[in-house]
Amino acid sequence: MEFPSKLIENAVGELSRLPGIGKKTALRLALHLLKAETDTTASLAEALAKMRFEIRYCDTCHNISDTPECAICANQLRDQSTVCVVSDIRDVIAIENTAQYQGMYHVLGGVISPIEGIGPADLTIDSLLERVTKEGSEIREVILAISPTMEGDTTAFYLSRKLRDLPEVHVSSIARGIPMGGELEYADEITLGRSIVERQRQARQ
Amino acid sequence: MEFPSKLIENAVGELSRLPGIGKKTALRLALHLLKAETDTTASLAEALAKMRFEIRYCDTCHNISDTPECAICANQLRDQSTVCVVSDIRDVIAIENTAQYQGMYHVLGGVISPIEGIGPADLTIDSLLERVTKEGSEIREVILAISPTMEGDTTAFYLSRKLRDLPEVHVSSIARGIPMGGELEYADEITLGRSIVERQRQARQ
Ligand SMILES: [Zn+2]
Ligand SMILES: [Zn+2]
Repeated sequence: MEFPSKLIENAVGELSRLPGIGKKTALRLALHLLKAETDTTASLAEALAKMRFEIRYCDTCHNISDTPECAICANQLRDQSTVCVVSDIRDVIAIENTAQYQGMYHVLGGVISPIEGIGPADLTIDSLLERVTKEGSEIREVILAISPTMEGDTTAFYLSRKLRDLPEVHVSSIARGIPMGGELEYADEITLGRSIVERQRQARQ
Repeated sequence: MEFPSKLIENAVGELSRLPGIGKKTALRLALHLLKAETDTTASLAEALAKMRFEIRYCDTCHNISDTPECAICANQLRDQSTVCVVSDIRDVIAIENTAQYQGMYHVLGGVISPIEGIGPADLTIDSLLERVTKEGSEIREVILAISPTMEGDTTAFYLSRKLRDLPEVHVSSIARGIPMGGELEYADEITLGRSIVERQRQARQ
């Protein structure tokens, strides 16, 4: 595709690097911005840059947060004895939207994937073990809410091995209402909510 | 949807103001940017802002251009006697991609739409008439390549009325290979290219 301006070509190039956005869609977005008030583009560019450069993560659960302790960790009304382990921030958002879960979270920041070169040390697994084992910890249950893909299952297996020797902590998995190979974030709210409520306690291996 | 951070909430809000981007897609884009290097977001934000604030239009044809005269108007190898009138910049890009047209362009900047309050004076119609009628003009044919929607037809009709009294200029329309009610930009290249080649000269009304 040829463009009448390098400025558009650059904008289309950058937009089409986003997942799911092809050249044609990128061009439509660019032309939309050109037609709209300059404020529209200024607000968009500023919001993106501000988000990327100022984003912080919760020291405890590694969820995104504007403060050192996120709103969920800071909420004393939530059940401090249960921690739901997810791979990604979007899983926290999805589970929160079901309104079926009142415990805490732990965001791994990904899943173990030898192909992509992601090992246990690249995830927040040590931080989870520290939370669970530290003196005075109230945690009595760890729910593994990881997408049932191959990498997700590997990660869940690794975690259950690490956690099984802690007699005072139960490990459970979200109920497999979610289709095998499916991504957690695409599940509808009812299925996802039920899979949390009907979570299965894992037998000690 | 609840967000763990105002920064994300703002970014998702701005992204979902773009056409065809819902909240869920916007969130996926935002989280993608958060995972990628900060450079990715910086380049995107900069390219968008630069495009919006520095964009210029060709003085002659009103196509987007980084210079006062666009590359098409400046190209002496193109046929100066034919002007293809389109509503939008993306139509120029679409027609150029067919490689079937070697003449000039004129970008109206929209179509006449009483509902949206767009009248002839809001488009570059006067500029087109000036180009066609000015002393020494080489223009002998004006091709109306406007999407055959209701507003497009109204605009084409208005233009042919304005142009019909110029004995030395023929007015033609692109062949209706394009489905009625269809948008020019969605046409495949072959259909669009053929509709230019097989354009129909309008009978003088
Ligand atoms: Zn937290
Ligand atoms: Zn031009």
